[in-house]
Amino acid sequence: MKELDFSHSLSSLIDFDSLLNRQVTLTGQIQNISELAWGGFIHLRLPNYVIQCVIDREKSKISFDGLRNESAVKITGTVVTSTIKNPNLWPRNVEVQVSAIDILAASETPELPVDISKKVLNCDLNTKFNYRPLTLRHPGQRAVFRIASCIYNEFGNFLNSIGFTRICSPKIVSGSAEGGANVFKLPYFDREAFLAQSPQFYKQMMVGVFGRVYEEAPVFRAEEHNTSRHLNEYISLDFEMVLENGFEDIIQVETAALNNIFAKLKETCRPEINLLGIEIPEIKKIVTVKFAEVHEIVFKETGRDFRDQNDLDPEEERLICDYSQKHWSSDFVFVTHYPASKRPFYALNDPGNPEETCSFDLLFRGIEITTGGARMHIYADYVKKMERRGMNVESFESFLQIFRYGMPPHGGLGLGLERLTAQLCGLANVKEASLFPRDMHRLEP
Amino acid sequence: MKELDFSHSLSSLIDFDSLLNRQVTLTGQIQNISELAWGGFIHLRLPNYVIQCVIDREKSKISFDGLRNESAVKITGTVVTSTIKNPNLWPRNVEVQVSAIDILAASETPELPVDISKKVLNCDLNTKFNYRPLTLRHPGQRAVFRIASCIYNEFGNFLNSIGFTRICSPKIVSGSAEGGANVFKLPYFDREAFLAQSPQFYKQMMVGVFGRVYEEAPVFRAEEHNTSRHLNEYISLDFEMVLENGFEDIIQVETAALNNIFAKLKETCRPEINLLGIEIPEIKKIVTVKFAEVHEIVFKETGRDFRDQNDLDPEEERLICDYSQKHWSSDFVFVTHYPASKRPFYALNDPGNPEETCSFDLLFRGIEITTGGARMHIYADYVKKMERRGMNVESFESFLQIFRYGMPPHGGLGLGLERLTAQLCGLANVKEASLFPRDMHRLEP
Repeated sequence: MKELDFSHSLSSLIDFDSLLNRQVTLTGQIQNISELAWGGFIHLRLPNYVIQCVIDREKSKISFDGLRNESAVKITGTVVTSTIKNPNLWPRNVEVQVSAIDILAASETPELPVDISKKVLNCDLNTKFNYRPLTLRHPGQRAVFRIASCIYNEFGNFLNSIGFTRICSPKIVSGSAEGGANVFKLPYFDREAFLAQSPQFYKQMMVGVFGRVYEEAPVFRAEEHNTSRHLNEYISLDFEMVLENGFEDIIQVETAALNNIFAKLKETCRPEINLLGIEIPEIKKIVTVKFAEVHEIVFKETGRDFRDQNDLDPEEERLICDYSQKHWSSDFVFVTHYPASKRPFYALNDPGNPEETCSFDLLFRGIEITTGGARMHIYADYVKKMERRGMNVESFESFLQIFRYGMPPHGGLGLGLERLTAQLCGLANVKEASLFPRDMHRLEP
Repeated sequence: MKELDFSHSLSSLIDFDSLLNRQVTLTGQIQNISELAWGGFIHLRLPNYVIQCVIDREKSKISFDGLRNESAVKITGTVVTSTIKNPNLWPRNVEVQVSAIDILAASETPELPVDISKKVLNCDLNTKFNYRPLTLRHPGQRAVFRIASCIYNEFGNFLNSIGFTRICSPKIVSGSAEGGANVFKLPYFDREAFLAQSPQFYKQMMVGVFGRVYEEAPVFRAEEHNTSRHLNEYISLDFEMVLENGFEDIIQVETAALNNIFAKLKETCRPEINLLGIEIPEIKKIVTVKFAEVHEIVFKETGRDFRDQNDLDPEEERLICDYSQKHWSSDFVFVTHYPASKRPFYALNDPGNPEETCSFDLLFRGIEITTGGARMHIYADYVKKMERRGMNVESFESFLQIFRYGMPPHGGLGLGLERLTAQLCGLANVKEASLFPRDMHRLEP
């Protein structure tokens, strides 16, 4: 038996300011090398930083010969004041004067398949994804996923702070919540199973247990379209809650969650925000507009007539967002009261107008990032609606049992992590907000 | 367009102490009813509480006739001081004197299939799982998953605080990290795909990007055994990091993470800890013991001879844990230097003894909850080892590419959320720590 000490390895959040004029040893990878007559610069990639290291050939006796981009190195040197303009670097008020470099693992490839040392990563989407483990090392790519990480964490922490409990529901399931199409099937021992398209039934079950629940987990959609808005696997941020006042409760919790996420991003991801040159919004007023009104506004404003459609076209989502920015000064639009015919069976119809549901989508900068709404909570209502839709009530019994025992009025939403990240970071394709995107043609890396 | 206000629905963490002698309205479900001559009690289930509500038949004019266990109700009343002994209730220093009850949704079943109103949930495992949406409503069951939720959150928050970045790796993959058996296959459009058995390759790739990464997500194992230690789908808490000093860095980060989780549990889950009557440990010293030594100690101590086995038998894990508690005063044992023959190809062999790996398992109260270790980081080492094992190097190229570009020494671990939860809560079967367990025979609910 041997006892280890508790002391080392715990922090990599280096406070460079406090290390000014002191010696440090940093383990990282070489992002970039600039060799000049007197010596040169290395940009060293660390977990949360890319720091400039200055090599004075005379003083340090270090040769550039063995150095290559992406090699893993241990650099020893002194932290000194500096003012660097390069937006890919952070921190920018200090740099390291190098006294020694120890190569831990040399890159084997003098020519990387994609040059990730430039300020802008210049390659097409396919190349970017084919060499994803390499292209993600670019600071601009890293920044996107630091932001995604912060969104994921703050969504959970905020909900936790207002009495929600995190749940982990199964992803291998026996039935599908959203209907038969678009679901991946797999053999499960001697039976057939499906990959969960959403945690819908499970989060409703868990409202009966905890009243307020949330989940952050992958969902799987076997959709056969390959657009800039779709992923076949993505992270769904879900919550479900007892409603005290109606489905507007959900909108209010989502607004508070988003504003907390935005505040946290501004607090902790300033280097990433600056590097990407993006603006983090704030929801200053909660704008809601009825689905039917959207059709009318868009028709009146643009002459485009979607009024006979029972869903919003992507083009119409863009148009109403433009309108909202112009007339309501809001990046966010909650479109409410979607037609019952386009919502799943568990949606609660509006008691005042059963053609409409107590539901909403949240549109942000031209795209839908959330679908939510109140659900039915009376057993007989489920049976009635499912029979009207020609559904097999019995096959849903393991879900429907909860409404026999007693369930409070409730509702919730699903927020696509990649869509929110893409919209915040100004990415044209949602796949760029997925570390390793999955689409019809892409299963690697 | 309609603007909503920001005000309501945000908190369900009620501070009952500050509401003493004031009127409240609570939406929840009836856990339990006790009718007596003068009136009686209702135990009302709220998101984080089960509170006692007192009905004085004379004063309130409320009848018990329409009331049933599990009905969703809105109760109005006054918060008053009280001292209640029932461990299923929280808070226990106050109760509510009811003035009105509004039934939001009545339970349809006067006789629930399982009685969840008693202090102890008295049913067999199959019944518990068949009626999971109901049996989870029992306070003892809720407590287990409040604890699991806290572990999940604190694991992430702690790692975040020391410079780790959360990643979300794909669960539909083209190859398998842990070897061919025990993997679920599925048709993916016109190809074959697999469900990820672990995020192993992806977290290694991401070390090259962020240096320190973690993930909390489901993993899938098509194992054909049905034991108290196995689940076919579970939540794996994973991290992977650059190593400065060797694989002991991983042990130190895990120890700090666990101690932070334990402290957070004591801080925020006191009612649940008391209700379950469990003790939350603390790692006061880091006990490591070599794999080969375990065989020797167990043989010397018990006469049981496992010395020709190149893995630890579950029985041997129990025996060394007993020994550790007795002789080393530790609930936790890090068993290090597992034989290379039993570790996956990416494990780093000990330079001093290539038969052994720089790896460890963490045993806690008799069971393995973590497998971790250092990984190889040199491309040629991978090729050599894989060829020796008769593996097809080419088919791993999308993973191996990272070692061509340059990778620092690194390693990490996977911690089973359900196993840790089960051990902390004293559950005999790991399935009881899964909300909706999946095994060979169970795919519902």
